[in-house]
Amino acid sequence: MSKGLLIVLSGPSGVGKGTVCSALRQRVPNLTYSVSATTRQPRLGEEHGVNYFFHSHDEFLRMIAEDQLLEHAEYVGNYYGTPRNFVEKTINEGRDIILEIEVQGALKVKEKFPEGIFVFLLPPSLDELKDRIQGRGTESQATIDHRMSVAVDEINLLEHYDYAVVNDEIDSACKRIESIIIAEHCKINK
Amino acid sequence: MSKGLLIVLSGPSGVGKGTVCSALRQRVPNLTYSVSATTRQPRLGEEHGVNYFFHSHDEFLRMIAEDQLLEHAEYVGNYYGTPRNFVEKTINEGRDIILEIEVQGALKVKEKFPEGIFVFLLPPSLDELKDRIQGRGTESQATIDHRMSVAVDEINLLEHYDYAVVNDEIDSACKRIESIIIAEHCKINK
Repeated sequence: MSKGLLIVLSGPSGVGKGTVCSALRQRVPNLTYSVSATTRQPRLGEEHGVNYFFHSHDEFLRMIAEDQLLEHAEYVGNYYGTPRNFVEKTINEGRDIILEIEVQGALKVKEKFPEGIFVFLLPPSLDELKDRIQGRGTESQATIDHRMSVAVDEINLLEHYDYAVVNDEIDSACKRIESIIIAEHCKINK
Repeated sequence: MSKGLLIVLSGPSGVGKGTVCSALRQRVPNLTYSVSATTRQPRLGEEHGVNYFFHSHDEFLRMIAEDQLLEHAEYVGNYYGTPRNFVEKTINEGRDIILEIEVQGALKVKEKFPEGIFVFLLPPSLDELKDRIQGRGTESQATIDHRMSVAVDEINLLEHYDYAVVNDEIDSACKRIESIIIAEHCKINK
């Protein structure tokens, strides 16, 4: 049996990673979704191993020390990370796994897992991205300007990725990502 | 405008290159098909530039000398070849072009045009290939054995290609080739 693939889907905040990932679930049903580890408390209805792997602070620090995470970051006082184990188990069983992650995290994953397929989701244009960020209607002008400047810096990291997919329409973007997965399985000398 | 791609579809005789190519015409309508040059006489209804580029023997020799062909071969007293010009014009116009060709020819094209995408069409199994060759019902046992041995030698050249596509069902094979084309267009640092 041949190994599965790790597909890392990344891109600037506001580009629609989450929406595209949800749509991919429908389109490519036999794709596994990477489950993150976290130190934050489970919310009502959240299950260990489904929504997150919930760990204590000490357990998380031990996982970092033992190199059990492909990347990790701190966010509002809690740790979040990608367990290497879950990814490796899935691909060793011959199943593909997709990881949706922001740009800096994806580049850290690439250091530890260079055989992954790194896909960068692009907005159709910077104007369109600005519209999407503004469209949420919750941000001040200063915040929007800051997020746009971060997005531009992130798009400049495109060259570290394998594929660029423009998120012009969700269906088209999903078809391109599905095509990338099919093509990668046909590759000789991966 | 970005350049088009040259997709070279190859594989052993009997694997179904022609059938898959015809089905692709329906599935991917904006794909151009490479037109061969030949010294053989046009048959009734054949048009220059549509079915073949028809050339005199002298013209063909001059095209070889001037490196105007990506590959050429002699077959029952006539020359056949792939005009470089037609391929380059098409991809410079931003359109993809597909070339259906036997294995040795494909490897010659690769020498002159390494930026092409080389796709090897595989039978689901060697037994299945034998069935397909026998199924034509026109060959002696010795011919079938010879063709099977050539096919095995050709399949051993797989490593020189970029992608392997199993022709289990025409629709699936076409979807894989279409996916390869879409994915190649998404590639960063081609």
